[in-house]
Amino acid sequence: MSGVARLIIRRARREDVGAIIAMLADDPLGGPREQIEDPLPQSYFTAFEQIVRDPNIQLVVAEDGEGAAVGCLQLCILPGLSSQGASRGLIEDVRVAKHCRSRGIGEQMVQWAVAEARGRGCKVVELLTHHTRVDAQRFYERLGFARSHVGMTLRF
Amino acid sequence: MSGVARLIIRRARREDVGAIIAMLADDPLGGPREQIEDPLPQSYFTAFEQIVRDPNIQLVVAEDGEGAAVGCLQLCILPGLSSQGASRGLIEDVRVAKHCRSRGIGEQMVQWAVAEARGRGCKVVELLTHHTRVDAQRFYERLGFARSHVGMTLRF
Repeated sequence: MSGVARLIIRRARREDVGAIIAMLADDPLGGPREQIEDPLPQSYFTAFEQIVRDPNIQLVVAEDGEGAAVGCLQLCILPGLSSQGASRGLIEDVRVAKHCRSRGIGEQMVQWAVAEARGRGCKVVELLTHHTRVDAQRFYERLGFARSHVGMTLRF
Repeated sequence: MSGVARLIIRRARREDVGAIIAMLADDPLGGPREQIEDPLPQSYFTAFEQIVRDPNIQLVVAEDGEGAAVGCLQLCILPGLSSQGASRGLIEDVRVAKHCRSRGIGEQMVQWAVAEARGRGCKVVELLTHHTRVDAQRFYERLGFARSHVGMTLRF
């Protein structure tokens, strides 16, 4: 369980983009969708600027004791009319660096996101996880999430 | 199929909020979560103002030939780093007034949302539908959506 105690969850900075893309790419589902080159394609930085400008979106990293980004997560707070006008929290792009798994980093990040959503008036937090990610589904169930919905996607 | 030809999909206005809440409430899952009274609780209008101010969110209604809102849908365009910084479209709160179902109104609204998301650079459109909404899942599959994910929720 080394490293967990000194974990800091903070807003991602421009210099974290490379580490975040590396985590997104180091994944059987996400890998083929990314383009890792040096320098990274400009599209990543354009998206990062859009995220930073949006007051309803927080892209955070988990920083270990050495200052390295070893986890990431994006939380969107979405206003909506349903449930008497309560906002919803949407968690996306949760990743933990391969060499840092099973240390509770994902749990700390998700618990942070749940607390943040709750603090901002959300009555529900939701996420989609690919049907093949059985371990992830067990992980979220352990944190209190229910397998209540079917997540449907249309890719272009 | 009466009424479909003259359907207009347009941004929701403040005076549509009552009709939208009535559609959200007229549902076995959503009903217990809403509070219908005259006037409607202020929380609905506060949420409506948040939606209107957010350039990434479009709450639309389907207006029939008589000017009545007979369907609603919310589309969020969410920036993100994954998929080379492509945005995602999230469809929420899709409803069609009970007396207007099976006329293709839902299909026109979802097709509008897919085209809008595509036009704004999204590479994927996603949604969560409750696992009991089997008809909805068939409807989305007919429009090209895949049952690719598990939708998980945590309610407070």
